[in-house]
Amino acid sequence: MSITTADITAAAARIAPYVHETPLWRLPSRALGLPADAPAFEVLLKLEHLQRSGSFKARGMFNRLLANPIPAAGVIAASGGNAGIATAVAARALGVRAEVFVPSVISAAKRARLAALGAEVVIAGDVYADALEACEARQRETGALMTHAYDQPEVVAGAGTLARELETQCGHAPDTLLVSVRGGGLIGGIAAWFAGRSLVVALEPELAPTLFRARAAGAPVDVQVGGIAADSLGARRIDRIAWEIAQRHVAQAELLGDEAIRDAQRFLWNELKLAVEPAAALPLAALRSGVVRPRAGERVALIVCGANLDPASLS
Amino acid sequence: MSITTADITAAAARIAPYVHETPLWRLPSRALGLPADAPAFEVLLKLEHLQRSGSFKARGMFNRLLANPIPAAGVIAASGGNAGIATAVAARALGVRAEVFVPSVISAAKRARLAALGAEVVIAGDVYADALEACEARQRETGALMTHAYDQPEVVAGAGTLARELETQCGHAPDTLLVSVRGGGLIGGIAAWFAGRSLVVALEPELAPTLFRARAAGAPVDVQVGGIAADSLGARRIDRIAWEIAQRHVAQAELLGDEAIRDAQRFLWNELKLAVEPAAALPLAALRSGVVRPRAGERVALIVCGANLDPASLS
Repeated sequence: MSITTADITAAAARIAPYVHETPLWRLPSRALGLPADAPAFEVLLKLEHLQRSGSFKARGMFNRLLANPIPAAGVIAASGGNAGIATAVAARALGVRAEVFVPSVISAAKRARLAALGAEVVIAGDVYADALEACEARQRETGALMTHAYDQPEVVAGAGTLARELETQCGHAPDTLLVSVRGGGLIGGIAAWFAGRSLVVALEPELAPTLFRARAAGAPVDVQVGGIAADSLGARRIDRIAWEIAQRHVAQAELLGDEAIRDAQRFLWNELKLAVEPAAALPLAALRSGVVRPRAGERVALIVCGANLDPASLS
Repeated sequence: MSITTADITAAAARIAPYVHETPLWRLPSRALGLPADAPAFEVLLKLEHLQRSGSFKARGMFNRLLANPIPAAGVIAASGGNAGIATAVAARALGVRAEVFVPSVISAAKRARLAALGAEVVIAGDVYADALEACEARQRETGALMTHAYDQPEVVAGAGTLARELETQCGHAPDTLLVSVRGGGLIGGIAAWFAGRSLVVALEPELAPTLFRARAAGAPVDVQVGGIAADSLGARRIDRIAWEIAQRHVAQAELLGDEAIRDAQRFLWNELKLAVEPAAALPLAALRSGVVRPRAGERVALIVCGANLDPASLS
């Protein structure tokens, strides 16, 4: 199963009334505080952290809900993070029920946020796997439409609409795109849209190397996840849809240390006044740490993917 | 003395290598959480809080410094807020000395920020007037170039470049512009650029009605300032350059309560993921409180002017 550009164009038409067109901010590379001898290139910051629900996931969740009949039982998801929030936002906008299963470790703030969005929050077990299992059992009982953070074609195609929008805003495909990876929904959608017309670079924390290890092994493998971005970038295994796309259209994968990620997150706030979660800082971290070194004159797009953070963490 | 569109175009050319072109975010009015029966209009959010130095003031300060010879003594300013920060940022970028005079009440965080930007911070007296007096005395001694938050033609023309950029990005003059007012530098520059081609609405906190009272009195008068935005919107008297422009080109002035301002600031963070200071929330507050009610189909620009805040205040 793969995702075509036609799937993405259909998704874009479907979700247009519900999601934001997020701004594209063009900056010279000198605005990123790179070493003085770095060549000058054009930076395209895609401010997708301003998307409805605070992350790109609204695109996939709206597409999932709009592309399928929704039973009376509504929708159901297992996620205390961006996927859960996006599911709740989409369900509320479409006037359907949402049940969101979360493990007991989730913070009170996240639980309150889901509840404020009208979702019924169900605490199930101590770890994510428990919550997922309980969610699946409940789904079989009620017949609710399940949303998954990445492993569904509508969700990947929805994420692909970000790439389509970016190309329209630029007037062309960027030379290089820097994209952070969790389960692969975002990079799968983006790589499916550009399909080799841009160099797509996958970025992961050293402590959550899901795609990186799969590339080394030649197939999806389970990895341990931890570190600063485990919350939003920790998936044990790369999704099969994304893996299939990545094998053809993702040319490069790099790992970044937590310190580089935190530095980039702080720079984004202190110097560019963008309040973003750690996962959204990986593209800048790749440039500031020198892991990715664009050539002079290149057009380099950075996907700034989410803003679900406690702003006090930036103080 | 007035500001012409030619002054603004000259300023734009002068400062272009040093300031950011900030993004313009187009949204449908339903994204603003207005009452369900409000007519639909087009929202143009000018994200000027992403400007260098964290506020629009970088435009005016770079223009002031670039339009004048800078003595060996460098530049000097009295301000613990956005004007002081912008002066320090511009001085550092141009490699000249900056002395910034502040009253003792300034927070340690603001003092540290100015020092981190390379400015020499001088604590002078307990209130702003003391700091200004000490600054002026020092200026006479050293001959440094003084920057003022609004009361200088280069500073007002610099702010006007924001309006010029906005019109280029839109492809036309908006029907209505919503602009918050402190001393008048921002609204003076914007009104000078559009010169009656757009309806410019001046917005002030009820507790800092500098332009509002001047309009009632028919001339600049001293007012008491306080409240949530006193920090960045508290000027005792409207500047004479801005007053002259406002009399001709500002058609409407409105006051907003601190509660409406705080509500809008929270909405900007919770729903649109824009972390902004209270002063930047007045345009949205005017719409959400119904003080300004656009007609169906109108194109309404909101100037989001600054992001110098402690992010913990949004938690």
